[in-house]
Amino acid sequence: MEVSVLRIGHRFVRDDRITTHAALVSRAFGTSKIYMTEVDESIKETIVKVGNRWGGSDFGIEIVQDWKKLVHSWKKNHGKVIHLTMYGINVDDIIEEIQKEKKVLVVIGARKVPREIFSLADYNIAIGNQPHSEIAALSIILDRIFKGKQLKKDFRGGKIRIIPNSKGKCVRETNVSDSS
Amino acid sequence: MEVSVLRIGHRFVRDDRITTHAALVSRAFGTSKIYMTEVDESIKETIVKVGNRWGGSDFGIEIVQDWKKLVHSWKKNHGKVIHLTMYGINVDDIIEEIQKEKKVLVVIGARKVPREIFSLADYNIAIGNQPHSEIAALSIILDRIFKGKQLKKDFRGGKIRIIPNSKGKCVRETNVSDSS
Repeated sequence: MEVSVLRIGHRFVRDDRITTHAALVSRAFGTSKIYMTEVDESIKETIVKVGNRWGGSDFGIEIVQDWKKLVHSWKKNHGKVIHLTMYGINVDDIIEEIQKEKKVLVVIGARKVPREIFSLADYNIAIGNQPHSEIAALSIILDRIFKGKQLKKDFRGGKIRIIPNSKGKCVRETNVSDSS
Repeated sequence: MEVSVLRIGHRFVRDDRITTHAALVSRAFGTSKIYMTEVDESIKETIVKVGNRWGGSDFGIEIVQDWKKLVHSWKKNHGKVIHLTMYGINVDDIIEEIQKEKKVLVVIGARKVPREIFSLADYNIAIGNQPHSEIAALSIILDRIFKGKQLKKDFRGGKIRIIPNSKGKCVRETNVSDSS
């Protein structure tokens, strides 16, 4: 399945680190792109740098002005919209239906989200009905959508690569033949 | 399995929101307790309030001064210590072994973690070997440890409860008989 992410309700500066985490999770868990509203350009730069260093630089980042326009356009031209909210249907009750989709946009909010997203979304899905974290919610839905298979995804084209190690840090610099 | 969480490397103020997310995830995903170092007392108060409102107020929170002492004590008296790090062994290669444990302490760091934790930990585990988020890493390991069954956990004793809904917010105030 092809998945993109939209982060809405970002509060300037205050939410910068959480939004950065959201973008990094979107990249590491195998989505194609993250759309963000009202964020500082520096967040975009951070993610681009991570891609250059760690590979998989085909991951897309776009700052959008009008998230509603994006959601309408997505529904018309691409596929379904999944809004993650603690008020929604428990993910475990609907994941099989979601897994049949071809292309989805996963929307995550900050503490306050515009009410319209509930009616605009095709699915309002809860990663449990308790308050926790949009970062946790995003990681779990992506893990479920991709059936737990993205944690070994190969990120090509980076400058360094981790060699998994049980007791310390082991990093290998990759050369052109590795990354081509 | 009984799981507790230790958050280390918190940077004062700057990491407050991320640490709050870590505590909320620890609670919502069914751990018994979170230990935090160098955090503001207000984070503890936030989590206690969430417990009073949403139930499951038996979740423990403790601010510790000396995380190394806690880790040593845990290893001696309780069980294994799992350090989450992108440099570790991929979770998918070791989760079956972890699932055999009776009691574990999951340690999550911030951007910089003290190097000693790598040698002190019984397991250094990576939720994939790409940079992302300690909140995502925590949620995935807990989801894997509890075999995905904590998202329907019953949190008793709260004042309100969500009735899952596909199109909006539906919240029910609980009475004494519900919560006893």
